[in-house]
Amino acid sequence: MNYDEKSIEMHRKHKGKIHIELNFDINNKEDLSIAYTPGVAAVSKKIYEDKEEKYNLTSIGNTVAVISNGTAVLGLGSIGAESAYPVMEGKSALFKKFGNVDAIPIVVDIKDKDEFVSFVEKISINYSGINLEDIKAPECFYIEKKLREKLNIPVFHDDQHGTAIVVLAALKNALKLANKKFEDIKIVISGAGSAGLAIAKLLLNMNPKELLVLDSKGILTKNREYKEEEFLKKEIATYNKNNISGSLKDALKNADVFIGVSKGNIMSKEDVLLMNEKPIIFALSNPIPEINYEDAKKTAFIVATGRSDYPNQINNVLAFPGLFRGLLNVKAKKITEELKIKVADAIANTIKSEELNVDNIIPSPFSNVHKNVILAVEEYYKEKRKK
Amino acid sequence: MNYDEKSIEMHRKHKGKIHIELNFDINNKEDLSIAYTPGVAAVSKKIYEDKEEKYNLTSIGNTVAVISNGTAVLGLGSIGAESAYPVMEGKSALFKKFGNVDAIPIVVDIKDKDEFVSFVEKISINYSGINLEDIKAPECFYIEKKLREKLNIPVFHDDQHGTAIVVLAALKNALKLANKKFEDIKIVISGAGSAGLAIAKLLLNMNPKELLVLDSKGILTKNREYKEEEFLKKEIATYNKNNISGSLKDALKNADVFIGVSKGNIMSKEDVLLMNEKPIIFALSNPIPEINYEDAKKTAFIVATGRSDYPNQINNVLAFPGLFRGLLNVKAKKITEELKIKVADAIANTIKSEELNVDNIIPSPFSNVHKNVILAVEEYYKEKRKK
Repeated sequence: MNYDEKSIEMHRKHKGKIHIELNFDINNKEDLSIAYTPGVAAVSKKIYEDKEEKYNLTSIGNTVAVISNGTAVLGLGSIGAESAYPVMEGKSALFKKFGNVDAIPIVVDIKDKDEFVSFVEKISINYSGINLEDIKAPECFYIEKKLREKLNIPVFHDDQHGTAIVVLAALKNALKLANKKFEDIKIVISGAGSAGLAIAKLLLNMNPKELLVLDSKGILTKNREYKEEEFLKKEIATYNKNNISGSLKDALKNADVFIGVSKGNIMSKEDVLLMNEKPIIFALSNPIPEINYEDAKKTAFIVATGRSDYPNQINNVLAFPGLFRGLLNVKAKKITEELKIKVADAIANTIKSEELNVDNIIPSPFSNVHKNVILAVEEYYKEKRKK
Repeated sequence: MNYDEKSIEMHRKHKGKIHIELNFDINNKEDLSIAYTPGVAAVSKKIYEDKEEKYNLTSIGNTVAVISNGTAVLGLGSIGAESAYPVMEGKSALFKKFGNVDAIPIVVDIKDKDEFVSFVEKISINYSGINLEDIKAPECFYIEKKLREKLNIPVFHDDQHGTAIVVLAALKNALKLANKKFEDIKIVISGAGSAGLAIAKLLLNMNPKELLVLDSKGILTKNREYKEEEFLKKEIATYNKNNISGSLKDALKNADVFIGVSKGNIMSKEDVLLMNEKPIIFALSNPIPEINYEDAKKTAFIVATGRSDYPNQINNVLAFPGLFRGLLNVKAKKITEELKIKVADAIANTIKSEELNVDNIIPSPFSNVHKNVILAVEEYYKEKRKK
């Protein structure tokens, strides 16, 4: 189905996807005096005395920002900040629908990474969390790192970690069905952009036997020269234990898992035959997967894509609404690697074992997945704060 | 009545005053594909091809920003950006309630005026209008001037022009009752901050016989030394035709109108006797007026204050919601002096002649004033665009 025209029509009819509503109505002079002057002065004074009160007395406590500079918008590339706005607004709609989180879309035409960090830092006092979105690699790594250091609220680049969390969740279920363990498997990731490197980093926590990542020049090796901003590539390459070099075909030999976050049609069904038994294929490039779905299905054990018209859709919306809802509920200040794994577990376990099969390794966004993620986040902080 | 505790209680109970809602619901995979990927890519492309489409296809078309740096918050002074947030959020609530305008509260801790301008310029692409708020004078004049030059959307410092418009509206009705004309009257304004100078500027359009403005040093005169940032004071002083100097008492001699936007209790009922017959007193300092209300009532013809517990409350909320609603309706790019006068007329004329009396010179925010303001704005642009 072609959603393009339908989408434009709906956007035009409704003038976008989100709007503001009041928390309580203002019907007379007294209401006015409570919501605005003179009463509001007392609220301002309260925050002046104790800044933490802003989370209790204003909408800040339930509000996050969805911020982009429009340099890597969906599959469209660097189409500019204003063109990215509908995507940020869409994210806000999903934040509300699935997490009851108030998310403010913000786009800004700043390509310089330090200037962007400085902008986000300045505006951050209006929010309880920052969701970075559609910022190109490798700048996105630097930007997120700096903001995590500077801010005392959670900072989350969803293209990296949202994708990584959902991939880990799906992979956990896939490995259960294949009866394989992380410590025995070889994983190949095609694509060393924001998603590819974040997936690699998160999966390394599971101690896979081998993990190779490819960019457009081939497998990342230890002896390659990396630019300063490619610090994540360099780090990931150190896990290429046997320092294997070469192309995707070279990487795929005896691989158990292929994860594609690169571009469409780079893999054939013959390539799948290079892999180990019960190959697991996540071909996530959108709209055209790394390998044609029907071809992959013929030779692979499990196939997942980023598309909604095939089984096993790997979709970030399974993670971010519940994650941020949970973070807001516990007034969390940081997101840890450990938490991301807990969230992945919660997503994976949403599928009951009797429902788990090769065409059902990941839950629908309309399931109780968000409730499970929220509980997992709350539980994690409860345990953490006990210690 | 003391609203302080009530206000804090309401803010705590409702966690602030505004939240996000969806324009259309997302109930299944198809809805998701329309609101978000893959459909939203077509919307982004449409804006990439024609930037003006952002006003039609996203929430930007109905959204303005309420921005402050917290340097002049209500009567509390420079209490900081975060403490100003409840005020900005209150304004957002009023924007929604009275104008159905989606207004995003934004506070930012930037005191340097050029840096503040640069910040607002960068974030402005997310909005169809900018409402500046609670920014201290004289920086506010420079900031607004620069932003009006740089941006192609309406920029409105409400503490200046909102106040000026409502004062003009009230004064028009007061003069009707006093049977006086602008060209025959002497006006004295106490206070040369954002409100005082903006009121002076707007009233000068009505060609009063004489207009004197006082700051803490006394009447603004032509021969005083003004700093560069006091360019507005200098300009206003040129209208001190007889170059009168001195104190408030000196200024009040034979004045027809006193407008106070300075501080409480600076005027006695004896001072009112210095004025011309049928004195009109707008003592707008909050919460304590320039002259005690009961005292003023004894000697003045008409008394107005900024307080909700006396008759004739001069309240900005009469202007900004309808003004911005109208501006958004016609996709206006600038606010002119002429438009401000039209809005003042619409506010003044909301009170029918048979209802006009010395204790009812200005309508209630719960009247049809906003509808009248919207119509006036639309009418103004219709006429302007015909030319």
